[in-house]
Amino acid sequence: MAIPLKKRRITLIGAGNVATNLGAALKNKGHIIHQVFSRSHQSAMILGHTFNCDYTTKLSDLSDKTDLIIVAVHDDSITSILENLKIKDKLIVHTSGTTPLSVFQENKFKQYGIFYPLQTFSKHDIESLLPIPISLEASNKKVENELIEIASSISKKVFLLDSEKRKALHVAAVFANNFSNYMFHISQQILEDENISFELIKPLIKRTVEKLDSSTPAESQTGPASRNDQKIISNHLEFLKGKKEFQQVYALLSESITKSRK
Amino acid sequence: MAIPLKKRRITLIGAGNVATNLGAALKNKGHIIHQVFSRSHQSAMILGHTFNCDYTTKLSDLSDKTDLIIVAVHDDSITSILENLKIKDKLIVHTSGTTPLSVFQENKFKQYGIFYPLQTFSKHDIESLLPIPISLEASNKKVENELIEIASSISKKVFLLDSEKRKALHVAAVFANNFSNYMFHISQQILEDENISFELIKPLIKRTVEKLDSSTPAESQTGPASRNDQKIISNHLEFLKGKKEFQQVYALLSESITKSRK
Repeated sequence: MAIPLKKRRITLIGAGNVATNLGAALKNKGHIIHQVFSRSHQSAMILGHTFNCDYTTKLSDLSDKTDLIIVAVHDDSITSILENLKIKDKLIVHTSGTTPLSVFQENKFKQYGIFYPLQTFSKHDIESLLPIPISLEASNKKVENELIEIASSISKKVFLLDSEKRKALHVAAVFANNFSNYMFHISQQILEDENISFELIKPLIKRTVEKLDSSTPAESQTGPASRNDQKIISNHLEFLKGKKEFQQVYALLSESITKSRK
Repeated sequence: MAIPLKKRRITLIGAGNVATNLGAALKNKGHIIHQVFSRSHQSAMILGHTFNCDYTTKLSDLSDKTDLIIVAVHDDSITSILENLKIKDKLIVHTSGTTPLSVFQENKFKQYGIFYPLQTFSKHDIESLLPIPISLEASNKKVENELIEIASSISKKVFLLDSEKRKALHVAAVFANNFSNYMFHISQQILEDENISFELIKPLIKRTVEKLDSSTPAESQTGPASRNDQKIISNHLEFLKGKKEFQQVYALLSESITKSRK
């Protein structure tokens, strides 16, 4: 018999992609979104309505009748939020891949942790977090157990990682998602300028990712740079001469791939 | 009633990823692989055995009892193959995304074309070409019809493109496949150095590609560079200081993404 979920009252600080998706996943699993904070009145209001809960633009309005405060804001804003938050004795986490755990201690919190979902979210496309890895770190064993229980209610892939390893994971995620997506962006721009549909490229992209299940990226590497085909590389750089930005990316990545194959 | 396929006798020049996959697809659809050529005896022999046909390492051994010669070699080698090939009056194509159609005329061929499958192949993972776009170009209407018929026997996405647009498609494919795969490679290296499994990143990669079906890459762009989060960017560059190669890629791509968001 499954143990019934202990419902937590949750406060969300931030109203962006991460707050929206985490909040929705937690609410879907029966937790209570108690309050939402955002500096922007409009964002606070939209998320408050979405979760049918209280919302505010003032940190001082936040209630201490909460089991968990989730700080899901840009890394640039985490410190100023923590400095100005009066509630210091409740369980609090942030969702950053890179800001270390020590930021809580520096701001005099008592029980704290990291709750870092490894995903690329968008506000307009709310998704299940079940297949999404969530990386945790905690100030003590009791907090760790509490975070494991909450994270496990929304994800099947919960694991512990210290701040240094979490940063490595974040950097790796930037390459795997942000930079690969930028490659797709450049690809689409090149095709658009020639009135060729990006749809033609999609089977190639899908296959590129499927290959990751049967071989390593190093084994799957093909193309002019991989076989050091300088004739094609020069030809392509010449083709890109009107697009300096893309030409520079092409040159650096080709050089780097060629080096990595030696 | 479907018109029965007219079986062609096909000569393969080259024994790499493209020759292997194209040959297998054509043979599977009932065409006859007549002869295989490779400069390497071992490669020629392996492919000859795979297709149960004659193989050779001498261009002068190639028989003119063929309906179609497919030149599937590196772009660097196309010209020397064409210069040295004595059979000038048979239908001949190459599979390059970038070498122009004019290379055939310069070498005195009479009927020729381009047969460019837009895919990343590997020898050890033979696949169906049905979902793979094949881009064609032909020296005249009769050749065009012939190539459309043959290409349509193995792919559902056959289309015509002139040499200049085909080059754009090839450059776009390099970004979409070669460079995105290299991003996965870097991601894996960073994780390996910290003993973190690359498996953790795969849901993120799959989601990145799924998003292409509902939004453009520009709309899907997230991450530190996209929101111009300089604190994280410096932090990540510092993390990568022992990996100069990756640090350079991180810096250039972040700068380029940030510019593209303005």
